[in-house]
Amino acid sequence: MREGHISKSVIRRLPRYYRCLRDLEKDGTARVSSDVLAKSLGFTASQVRQDFSNFGEFGQQGYGYNVSSLLSEIASIIGVNRKHRAVIIGVGNLGRALLNNFKFKNYGFELVAAFDTNKELIGTKVGEVDILDIADMEKGYDENPFEVAILCVPKVCVQDVAKRAAGLGVNGIWNFTNIDLDLDEFDVVVENVHFADSLMRLCYGISE
Amino acid sequence: MREGHISKSVIRRLPRYYRCLRDLEKDGTARVSSDVLAKSLGFTASQVRQDFSNFGEFGQQGYGYNVSSLLSEIASIIGVNRKHRAVIIGVGNLGRALLNNFKFKNYGFELVAAFDTNKELIGTKVGEVDILDIADMEKGYDENPFEVAILCVPKVCVQDVAKRAAGLGVNGIWNFTNIDLDLDEFDVVVENVHFADSLMRLCYGISE
Repeated sequence: MREGHISKSVIRRLPRYYRCLRDLEKDGTARVSSDVLAKSLGFTASQVRQDFSNFGEFGQQGYGYNVSSLLSEIASIIGVNRKHRAVIIGVGNLGRALLNNFKFKNYGFELVAAFDTNKELIGTKVGEVDILDIADMEKGYDENPFEVAILCVPKVCVQDVAKRAAGLGVNGIWNFTNIDLDLDEFDVVVENVHFADSLMRLCYGISE
Repeated sequence: MREGHISKSVIRRLPRYYRCLRDLEKDGTARVSSDVLAKSLGFTASQVRQDFSNFGEFGQQGYGYNVSSLLSEIASIIGVNRKHRAVIIGVGNLGRALLNNFKFKNYGFELVAAFDTNKELIGTKVGEVDILDIADMEKGYDENPFEVAILCVPKVCVQDVAKRAAGLGVNGIWNFTNIDLDLDEFDVVVENVHFADSLMRLCYGISE
């Protein structure tokens, strides 16, 4: 799996900067200081300045940051201003929740297909997205390549489906399966949405 | 909202220690060194030792850690060995995915009810969990109190429902709504499963 040169903790904070700046822009705020950004995010001002210094020079001392240009820089760094083609693999309740409710377009993604094994689903649509037979994933990729596979499949077939997707050459896997993927041999970025880890953090928080 | 004394980054790593040790115990491993733990988790050995030192003395220099007793200590620190009563609020696709597929019991949680506004769902069950009218949440809490509310409601009613739950006195909110909750006035732990932030991290990873 690929490793970047920016620390994981900085990358972890980028989306929060993006959302905060997007909200400021919506509210019509033109300039913002690192102090104000830091306060609304629960970081320190020096951390904000240090994080941004990883990506170049955005602010001018004493003047703060221009919200729109900083937002557009961060959007560009994250890549949400590009279009990434993605497929959902597994149209159970969770896959369907994503298909129905998640605004992929707001984050630079276009859903081009969904795959499942259920004969009753294959050939139908959720919204505008066609549900195709997972047996045809390789064929689907050849006809209509995608960069990202969103894994919502049951535990028993996770590693197999992940390897098939990585083998096709996808750049990224968004993994909802709660299982750590074994893809060291592939050049693919894996982002886990690990419900169990999250619930355990909550458990720790309320147990303290 | 409540803040603990252990750093967030340590808390963030605890579930991964737990899962790793649970796998080692399943495989019959009796002892493990900080080097081996670190390697399988992608941390440094000194970070592992430093993390554990936050919670007391577990290892003996040169002998490594006893897997079973370390696992049981970490389970106890996280609180997964206790039973926390939880409800799901919102039985759309995502709420249903959690009800059907997520093993709450493995992480110290018992689902005691689910709430929704949909008259066709109210009075039915998903698995063994009754779906009740969200208008009766306060009554439900009085009869059968719960510690944790799992928020899977649509965006329009998020803040309202979150405040109602926090006002009842729940200790924790597991927030799937992709909206930052405004609960500063309440003593409640909020754990966010923020799909958008996660997708933006993936976006950054594949854009590099």
